[in-house]
Amino acid sequence: MGKLTEDFESYRTRMNDRIMESANTNIKRFFALDATTYADGALDVKTKEMLGLVASTVLRCDDCIKYHLGKCYEAGVGHDEMNEVFMIANLVGGSIVIPHYRRAVEYWDELNEA
Amino acid sequence: MGKLTEDFESYRTRMNDRIMESANTNIKRFFALDATTYADGALDVKTKEMLGLVASTVLRCDDCIKYHLGKCYEAGVGHDEMNEVFMIANLVGGSIVIPHYRRAVEYWDELNEA
Amino acid sequence: MGKLTEDFESYRTRMNDRIMESANTNIKRFFALDATTYADGALDVKTKEMLGLVASTVLRCDDCIKYHLGKCYEAGVGHDEMNEVFMIANLVGGSIVIPHYRRAVEYWDELNEA
Amino acid sequence: MGKLTEDFESYRTRMNDRIMESANTNIKRFFALDATTYADGALDVKTKEMLGLVASTVLRCDDCIKYHLGKCYEAGVGHDEMNEVFMIANLVGGSIVIPHYRRAVEYWDELNEA
Amino acid sequence: MGKLTEDFESYRTRMNDRIMESANTNIKRFFALDATTYADGALDVKTKEMLGLVASTVLRCDDCIKYHLGKCYEAGVGHDEMNEVFMIANLVGGSIVIPHYRRAVEYWDELNEA
Amino acid sequence: MGKLTEDFESYRTRMNDRIMESANTNIKRFFALDATTYADGALDVKTKEMLGLVASTVLRCDDCIKYHLGKCYEAGVGHDEMNEVFMIANLVGGSIVIPHYRRAVEYWDELNEA
Repeated sequence: MGKLTEDFESYRTRMNDRIMESANTNIKRFFALDATTYADGALDVKTKEMLGLVASTVLRCDDCIKYHLGKCYEAGVGHDEMNEVFMIANLVGGSIVIPHYRRAVEYWDELNEA
Repeated sequence: MGKLTEDFESYRTRMNDRIMESANTNIKRFFALDATTYADGALDVKTKEMLGLVASTVLRCDDCIKYHLGKCYEAGVGHDEMNEVFMIANLVGGSIVIPHYRRAVEYWDELNEA
Repeated sequence: MGKLTEDFESYRTRMNDRIMESANTNIKRFFALDATTYADGALDVKTKEMLGLVASTVLRCDDCIKYHLGKCYEAGVGHDEMNEVFMIANLVGGSIVIPHYRRAVEYWDELNEA
Repeated sequence: MGKLTEDFESYRTRMNDRIMESANTNIKRFFALDATTYADGALDVKTKEMLGLVASTVLRCDDCIKYHLGKCYEAGVGHDEMNEVFMIANLVGGSIVIPHYRRAVEYWDELNEA
Repeated sequence: MGKLTEDFESYRTRMNDRIMESANTNIKRFFALDATTYADGALDVKTKEMLGLVASTVLRCDDCIKYHLGKCYEAGVGHDEMNEVFMIANLVGGSIVIPHYRRAVEYWDELNEA
Repeated sequence: MGKLTEDFESYRTRMNDRIMESANTNIKRFFALDATTYADGALDVKTKEMLGLVASTVLRCDDCIKYHLGKCYEAGVGHDEMNEVFMIANLVGGSIVIPHYRRAVEYWDELNEA
């Protein structure tokens, strides 16, 4: 696992563990809902993860982008497909997405070098 | 064609025509790029239109939602698939998406009654 | 009930009914979570509804603003309190909030004339 | 004065009058600050109004756009200049700006026909 | 004072001092308005700081979140109350708020360990 | 060149080079459009860069802010002019812009010390 991936995953895991200790029932339900939403259904996991990625990118949430890039990688999204997701995100969200796109490319490259 | 669809399409066509008359070259290039981005490629049109829809929904742009709902309908997105796209949009974007989701359901129903 | 309130409530009820018919389980869970989040707890309903209102206002969601204004009115938020909520929303969200604030004042006035 | 302009101005005036009656001191200070910010200074009014317009457009606030379009018109912004402001807004904010751009063009045309 | 708190406070103080040197009168007025808005009034400081926090969280501004967390801690917001504020923020703003919520929990924990 | 400027420029250059290698044609067209949009035209480069800066600031994109601050510096934007741009951004975007404004002042100071 590369450095960017490891840093992201270890902080995420540590804080999610802490949240499961400290949060109330509704917050735990919200997290549970977050998990089931991306499960295989009428749409397959790969499509859902690309949907999660494009939504995260136009909303410019770097950590959400990293999370869904990891899931897209696991689901077998290829290089040309990823470029088309990135293009839709840049076009819909505009040039303010570009700095997030740069960081996404760096993270995606690291995932693919692993 | 239902009333909501007709109102949306006729205003959109009228103003796009006016923009093609009045805009400068860069704006026309931007509109051209918007069109080619959703063309069949590594990802098919159906997947791309769902990506455009979820991005438009989390950014809460009613007209963009209507546009991509129309394209999703043409591309054959089914009822269960659409519900999963809507769920991702509601979850990622939060409860402020709900009013846009209500209007999206109304528009989607009209498209399917046509 | 005034005209603005009636229009908002009747569309909201009609489409929520339709959503309960057409939505999948996760969307229904999301709506259920939305309801329980504002229930009396460590914070009382009045405080929670002001929190919902200020969040909706800085995110500039007119329908969400109307919904929480109605709930704030029922929970007994007074005129001076409401002005302080509006001020925080205008300050945090900036002058782009002003058009939403204008519509909020109109709706709040109607609720108080009822 | 055209219909779009008249509708916008009359509602804005009516609600601003109501706000001056009902608001607290801090809100009135915020409105006063809004007015002085666009006054002639190191930058002239024309430049400031274009800055206000582009900010309003990327934040997708239709009423704010109308307000600054009116002020840009009064300040003598020409057709080619306006197209370059619109292009920056479309590019920075992305294709979700397009529906707001359509309405802006309609309003700008009405101002110029007056 | 913990490390996260100290880093935030020292940078904030240093740059606010620099801004008071370099800014124009309107910017100084805007900063002054920011301070008076959260003063005790029809709503008490504790309620206002929770309003500031939820607004900052749905707008996903990490530094604003830290600032209001510090003020909420001083105003005596308890653990269960804070969880209900966090829940409203996660629900209204959606799952893109989660990474900011993680950092908020880490900061809140540090404040409470102090 | 100061440290902040150097860090920003070197990462930006490295990732833009990588993007030119890995991106598809539409993404390259989008980047090309980004470049030509700020070229001298009906509006001069200085005005356009201030427009790009205010748009980036209200959308709270730190890297976009740095980029346009660099271009504004090159185009000869003065201290008093910059303060008026910052004021419009703070006013329109609200107090959540303040943390980005702090970092912008730090970067602007570094550019002017160079």
